[in-house]
Amino acid sequence: MAHPTTKNNTVKKYAPKNPLLSPRFGDIATFGRLPHTQNLSGVDIAVVGIPFDGATTYRPGARFAPRAIRTSSCMNRNVHPEYGVHIYKKLSAIDYGDVNCNPLNLKKTFGEISKTYGLLLKADVLPIALGGDHSVIIPILRAMHQKYGHFGLIQFDAHTDTADQAWGEKIHHGTPIRRLLEDGTLRGRDVFQIGIRGPLTSEDQMEWDRKQGITHLTAEEYQKKGMAPVLRKLNRKIPYYLTFDVDGVDPAFAPGTGTPVVGGLSSLQALEAVRALKGLRFIGFDIVEVSPPYDHAELTTLLASTLVFEFMALAALNK
Amino acid sequence: MAHPTTKNNTVKKYAPKNPLLSPRFGDIATFGRLPHTQNLSGVDIAVVGIPFDGATTYRPGARFAPRAIRTSSCMNRNVHPEYGVHIYKKLSAIDYGDVNCNPLNLKKTFGEISKTYGLLLKADVLPIALGGDHSVIIPILRAMHQKYGHFGLIQFDAHTDTADQAWGEKIHHGTPIRRLLEDGTLRGRDVFQIGIRGPLTSEDQMEWDRKQGITHLTAEEYQKKGMAPVLRKLNRKIPYYLTFDVDGVDPAFAPGTGTPVVGGLSSLQALEAVRALKGLRFIGFDIVEVSPPYDHAELTTLLASTLVFEFMALAALNK
Amino acid sequence: MAHPTTKNNTVKKYAPKNPLLSPRFGDIATFGRLPHTQNLSGVDIAVVGIPFDGATTYRPGARFAPRAIRTSSCMNRNVHPEYGVHIYKKLSAIDYGDVNCNPLNLKKTFGEISKTYGLLLKADVLPIALGGDHSVIIPILRAMHQKYGHFGLIQFDAHTDTADQAWGEKIHHGTPIRRLLEDGTLRGRDVFQIGIRGPLTSEDQMEWDRKQGITHLTAEEYQKKGMAPVLRKLNRKIPYYLTFDVDGVDPAFAPGTGTPVVGGLSSLQALEAVRALKGLRFIGFDIVEVSPPYDHAELTTLLASTLVFEFMALAALNK
Amino acid sequence: MAHPTTKNNTVKKYAPKNPLLSPRFGDIATFGRLPHTQNLSGVDIAVVGIPFDGATTYRPGARFAPRAIRTSSCMNRNVHPEYGVHIYKKLSAIDYGDVNCNPLNLKKTFGEISKTYGLLLKADVLPIALGGDHSVIIPILRAMHQKYGHFGLIQFDAHTDTADQAWGEKIHHGTPIRRLLEDGTLRGRDVFQIGIRGPLTSEDQMEWDRKQGITHLTAEEYQKKGMAPVLRKLNRKIPYYLTFDVDGVDPAFAPGTGTPVVGGLSSLQALEAVRALKGLRFIGFDIVEVSPPYDHAELTTLLASTLVFEFMALAALNK
Amino acid sequence: MAHPTTKNNTVKKYAPKNPLLSPRFGDIATFGRLPHTQNLSGVDIAVVGIPFDGATTYRPGARFAPRAIRTSSCMNRNVHPEYGVHIYKKLSAIDYGDVNCNPLNLKKTFGEISKTYGLLLKADVLPIALGGDHSVIIPILRAMHQKYGHFGLIQFDAHTDTADQAWGEKIHHGTPIRRLLEDGTLRGRDVFQIGIRGPLTSEDQMEWDRKQGITHLTAEEYQKKGMAPVLRKLNRKIPYYLTFDVDGVDPAFAPGTGTPVVGGLSSLQALEAVRALKGLRFIGFDIVEVSPPYDHAELTTLLASTLVFEFMALAALNK
Amino acid sequence: MAHPTTKNNTVKKYAPKNPLLSPRFGDIATFGRLPHTQNLSGVDIAVVGIPFDGATTYRPGARFAPRAIRTSSCMNRNVHPEYGVHIYKKLSAIDYGDVNCNPLNLKKTFGEISKTYGLLLKADVLPIALGGDHSVIIPILRAMHQKYGHFGLIQFDAHTDTADQAWGEKIHHGTPIRRLLEDGTLRGRDVFQIGIRGPLTSEDQMEWDRKQGITHLTAEEYQKKGMAPVLRKLNRKIPYYLTFDVDGVDPAFAPGTGTPVVGGLSSLQALEAVRALKGLRFIGFDIVEVSPPYDHAELTTLLASTLVFEFMALAALNK
Repeated sequence: MAHPTTKNNTVKKYAPKNPLLSPRFGDIATFGRLPHTQNLSGVDIAVVGIPFDGATTYRPGARFAPRAIRTSSCMNRNVHPEYGVHIYKKLSAIDYGDVNCNPLNLKKTFGEISKTYGLLLKADVLPIALGGDHSVIIPILRAMHQKYGHFGLIQFDAHTDTADQAWGEKIHHGTPIRRLLEDGTLRGRDVFQIGIRGPLTSEDQMEWDRKQGITHLTAEEYQKKGMAPVLRKLNRKIPYYLTFDVDGVDPAFAPGTGTPVVGGLSSLQALEAVRALKGLRFIGFDIVEVSPPYDHAELTTLLASTLVFEFMALAALNK
Repeated sequence: MAHPTTKNNTVKKYAPKNPLLSPRFGDIATFGRLPHTQNLSGVDIAVVGIPFDGATTYRPGARFAPRAIRTSSCMNRNVHPEYGVHIYKKLSAIDYGDVNCNPLNLKKTFGEISKTYGLLLKADVLPIALGGDHSVIIPILRAMHQKYGHFGLIQFDAHTDTADQAWGEKIHHGTPIRRLLEDGTLRGRDVFQIGIRGPLTSEDQMEWDRKQGITHLTAEEYQKKGMAPVLRKLNRKIPYYLTFDVDGVDPAFAPGTGTPVVGGLSSLQALEAVRALKGLRFIGFDIVEVSPPYDHAELTTLLASTLVFEFMALAALNK
Repeated sequence: MAHPTTKNNTVKKYAPKNPLLSPRFGDIATFGRLPHTQNLSGVDIAVVGIPFDGATTYRPGARFAPRAIRTSSCMNRNVHPEYGVHIYKKLSAIDYGDVNCNPLNLKKTFGEISKTYGLLLKADVLPIALGGDHSVIIPILRAMHQKYGHFGLIQFDAHTDTADQAWGEKIHHGTPIRRLLEDGTLRGRDVFQIGIRGPLTSEDQMEWDRKQGITHLTAEEYQKKGMAPVLRKLNRKIPYYLTFDVDGVDPAFAPGTGTPVVGGLSSLQALEAVRALKGLRFIGFDIVEVSPPYDHAELTTLLASTLVFEFMALAALNK
Repeated sequence: MAHPTTKNNTVKKYAPKNPLLSPRFGDIATFGRLPHTQNLSGVDIAVVGIPFDGATTYRPGARFAPRAIRTSSCMNRNVHPEYGVHIYKKLSAIDYGDVNCNPLNLKKTFGEISKTYGLLLKADVLPIALGGDHSVIIPILRAMHQKYGHFGLIQFDAHTDTADQAWGEKIHHGTPIRRLLEDGTLRGRDVFQIGIRGPLTSEDQMEWDRKQGITHLTAEEYQKKGMAPVLRKLNRKIPYYLTFDVDGVDPAFAPGTGTPVVGGLSSLQALEAVRALKGLRFIGFDIVEVSPPYDHAELTTLLASTLVFEFMALAALNK
Repeated sequence: MAHPTTKNNTVKKYAPKNPLLSPRFGDIATFGRLPHTQNLSGVDIAVVGIPFDGATTYRPGARFAPRAIRTSSCMNRNVHPEYGVHIYKKLSAIDYGDVNCNPLNLKKTFGEISKTYGLLLKADVLPIALGGDHSVIIPILRAMHQKYGHFGLIQFDAHTDTADQAWGEKIHHGTPIRRLLEDGTLRGRDVFQIGIRGPLTSEDQMEWDRKQGITHLTAEEYQKKGMAPVLRKLNRKIPYYLTFDVDGVDPAFAPGTGTPVVGGLSSLQALEAVRALKGLRFIGFDIVEVSPPYDHAELTTLLASTLVFEFMALAALNK
Repeated sequence: MAHPTTKNNTVKKYAPKNPLLSPRFGDIATFGRLPHTQNLSGVDIAVVGIPFDGATTYRPGARFAPRAIRTSSCMNRNVHPEYGVHIYKKLSAIDYGDVNCNPLNLKKTFGEISKTYGLLLKADVLPIALGGDHSVIIPILRAMHQKYGHFGLIQFDAHTDTADQAWGEKIHHGTPIRRLLEDGTLRGRDVFQIGIRGPLTSEDQMEWDRKQGITHLTAEEYQKKGMAPVLRKLNRKIPYYLTFDVDGVDPAFAPGTGTPVVGGLSSLQALEAVRALKGLRFIGFDIVEVSPPYDHAELTTLLASTLVFEFMALAALNK
């Protein structure tokens, strides 16, 4: 879309449109008022939408998340309040647009995701996905694995997403972690899940996870210990992918989601938890399971777009 | 659920729970306060939910329609204000419960619909479906065809549902009529579509329909002529199935739907149009494409449950 | 309604319908997908709706709570995440349906509640009420007293419910505790109120309560000390009834209520507070003052249904 | 509240605050920006709130209607677009405030209504009530009868309100017309009901009404004939009271109501129907059954406050 | 944004992205999935947002309209259902983006509008504005006048917008027509206002308008006569600008607006009224006063985007 | 409005209407059911509305806040739960009504605010403003300075409000603190800002503030240290003005605001933070930036009215 970016020779090639030219709520809603382009030359980091909710088992609606998060993201600014880093002096950032999803066909959609991530990774662009339901990380993490080999996963979520199936279906938004462990994309000991909570289906539901070596930090534990139990166990030699299912946060703070579970993290705790990961090397990020039809007053989409700001800041620190 | 029905020896075996025993908003929400049973002996008419929206191309949510319509249906009463017929003195009516849908698998869901309709039709029960998206009529009408041979279709809808495909998918909620014409379940000259309107994709979009002999009564035409153009052309020798896509009604009256088109019928016009069909022999009914996440103050679910009342009254007149 | 429960010979007579047969949002909405029956043989625990809000002084709407909580309760599962207990291997559980309330007549409604609780207690069924406004505990606790003699009360609430009257009315949703202390159903020293907060009407408003020996744990105190002050004072020799007015929780987490007071517990604190009661013997539970017209995205009804899950788990631990 | 009214020596003693002094949304919300006083000297017409919904059988909430209608009423202006009459040059108008209702006690509330109406009628003030549920017309019309003797009733409503009882209760919002016919306050041949529609409870439900000589103009008939069938039958020698149950209008136009019935009048039809009554002598008006918790974007309260404007204009024409 | 438009050599240079490449709800939300560019070469028609509501006297929020209308506009298609014209075979169409508004400064915003319209008109592009409040037509129509000399105005609106001032302010969203008549941009006899209704401030409010020769077609008249009274009086020798204040439509169909007046046109009537203008030569269009914070389920934004489709079709007929 | 206040000779001249005369939701909505008068004789404290949002840069709507806060304020009572002080035995309190704002003219509105505050301060009345956007404190604090000379400012806010300008505008709701420091109304070392958080525009955004000596307590710091860092630095020799921008609180607790930032204080933390200021001498208070169109179930307006109760209690302690 090539809008006139800040006339500031210190920022990188692509940066948000200057809000002093037009109010933040003006113009076509790209993520964070960033230029929209699919030309990846000179791009460090790209936001990409994946408007797909075909693997949802309860409330659908995440197909509308990329547009809704973009709308709220106009309030993102430039500098992280704690790190002091000016993101766009470190990173040339774009809104890549959306993956061409097929709302009726999981397989073809996964194919399109693979294709897009192939292009982004080939161009050495750091991708941030706006989901979509959580199934979309299957092709994403496989692409990551292909490029980076072994990496760890940090997952904010109310659910472990390690179910085996439902109604005979092996791929839905509650199974991606199991599928990715089975095919070797992930190793259990490098998977960290934060915000886990809620009633279980069977007594041994957590058994399989524990055998894999997955680390769970429940919402109740986070209240008492914060991120310390995770930080202690992280292998700092490998890079990480951060996936943020918005239902890791309590539904009072994030009502716009598909499978809410009461008793989650507050928004402030979510920010603190993400900031605790400062210093890790990240190869990708996503925010998933935002369902705008259930949102109110942009609570959830504003949280989602703020989390993307935090992701960008983590990435900028790496530069 | 076998709740104590009206102590009135003139009503049939199954009838709504007496509202003088408990307020209408009380008790577990079955359709119209009818008994829930799957024992079809002594049953004339059955409401059956099909909580499936896996073939939706725009806003999902119809999976929640059966429950939401049941909740609003407690205000249904017994006697039609125009016909004067007391439904439950003519018909023994139940809430059969829901088809066991698979939200991730269209094919298996169609199989379950076929199975349930097989049972209902075998027992000579007149079925009224609470959809679900409009794709669910594919297995329903095939079951009808198997039992009744040739029949006509009266369809309220903003869309013709005669698309050929989308993203290569042959079955979605915009294609059922084409599929059913292709396989001989329907014949074009016995298909009547009321409420059609809105922008078209291509100049020849209506060509195929016209070649099939489908009758379109647009919303604009309905304003001027009412149902007369349809009534003139109906073949009264064959039985009819009535499918009501709630988007045939204007979104002001039915906001809770997936693919709204402005400029539709009012609720009162919808009632009048259905009542104009008095005297036809009906073999089945449905109300589809109700999407509760977009509804407000039960506008859409109350309209849907009232339409089911109208369907029951049409059926009672046949007795 | 006798739906086919899990084919698992280890669960009790009545257990939730298997979600692998149909999705959680499918079927007629009974509490937690439990069978609906009023035959109490072989039943350990029963959920019963009391759709009555005729004693409300501010926002009504609680009459719609039983249906709305049932709708959200489909996400309840089987096993408690902390205790590890599988509820339905310990308890045979049903949805009993609703008390036949009279929305215009408090006295008759109380009579119906007494009748229903008489039946449940005679059959040694542990009842969990879905209110309704808080006045409904008057007949409930009187029935409990008749069966169990002396017992203690643990009450989550923003208000003490010890008012004497309003506009000359002795029975409304702000007076039940006073009435029950006056008639000897409760003794002040065994009444524990958690979450109390907000402006008072007069300087001596709390005086009467203190004279009765009631223990107050304000929301502010809970923030600092948790449940410890209550746990220290509980007499573990007597059984307890737990009544949960959802306004004990902050309106951000439970907007759907009639008399909200800002500054309450979070959902997670509510869960922790209930779990702190592990080991007590409970003779009954309720969740009251949920007002669906003010809810958003099922925040309040999901919290309510999750609390019922917690109550069931407490009961299962007693087995 | 005695705010500075328009400095215009042509208007009467009490008139709306000049919107050029402060914007319409400013100031404490009295009806139509009118002065609030309970001193009836020099007053021609008074708006009075009756915040009571204790006789509601389905959705409550009408207790909040007087405040909500006042809020929307700031957009009322001075001159009727069709009659050309400047209301406040003809009528000195106030907001009297509310009747002191008791939300838990119908009888006492009726007593307070009687007391207030006694005062208003004694002072020859024309009252316009903001309900409240429809039961409030029982004491209102009895007070009218006492002052004026025989008068006719024009009622906009989806329901006839001639039920005999529910759950043994003789007074609820569905019975006022029967009670008032029984006690001689009304005579059936002078009762005109417009907008009647919807399913009936029994075949003979309308029998009693017809025997009384009540005239029904159904919503369907209104579509075809307008008010003509009513206008033909009105006895122009007697004065009339106009009661407007907002559910006479379709829920698309008036979602904020307690017992919605689809298929009603549009807002424009409602205005036209009221305007058709021009020339009758009116002794009082009300708008009832507005339930703000179910409203959206002030649709219903704006309609209600506009109808009050129409009532005032009808009254001004009589001057 | 240059997305790959339909590979169809019959469409013009700029046309909507093919929905078979990605679902309609996918991708960055430009109007109607059109390419975004500010290069006007080869462009026939351009949609331009004016996110400004600084001249609003009641409910603000229209600043968010351009983005919200864009979001709903993905359901626009290609061919008009009545005219049969394929818009994009006649017209090369773009989304130009937004005028750089200053939310705090009316004057500077008007300057920016003038600048943008200067560019568009210089390039012979037909502009369609997405407002913004109704004040924005002041600079728009002045630009039109500069280019085209005398032209007529067709205005859908509940209000005449001919007020002189409020609180001493000469420019607000209720005064543009008076300002434009005063400065000679418009001539009264060529101004046609449709949908006018509602209470007036003074008896002579309409006097000034009549003296100017403005034609009013009230909503009540439209019900009875349709557009005939306007069509009779139109001077077909001059070109027209069409301005559509969404409050011309009834708030049931368009709740998301700032100054709603009950009793307006239905959506279908609005479509019919616009279509009645077929054959006129148009020099510009706008849709104004859409206020998304008051909308529900996209009712108003979908109507707005459909009206833009109708405008494009009117323009295509001129080609 | 002079309604009959509590017949209790211990309360001051003006006190809330007795809720035992009429229910809290009854009567014309003044703040806290207080008498409305503009006669300042015998008045200690006055609530005054400022319905102005003309300086808003993102979501408007605060113009509707005074009315909406008044509506929710009926639940305020008399006695502070922690201090035990009966407000109305200490303070004679009124609802003064609203400042005559001009929604289109910041300058004139500021003039009207100055005029009203001049009157209130001359009469030695302690004012509590219901905003309005945050720009309204410019004339308020200037009036305070004129009367009291030097005073400190305690500000709850997500933002520092020390921006220099936007789009060339020096006065908007993000600049008041800078303007008031520039003109000497405030001194930086006596300005305390609590709840600050969120992305920054530039690296040196906080530099200017620090040079002025402003104390920031971020939301993150508040979580860890509470108010201690502020309490340590307060100069207890000067009086204070407390300004509460509701966006200091997290949007989950206060969704109805214009510029939400995730990660803020909870409602309970807000109450505790205000209570920590006990003992300071206050010369005025306000609650600003409440935007009702974005609120849900009165969450934000109830919080706002409860904060006003806390302000009154702080003032009562000073007596």
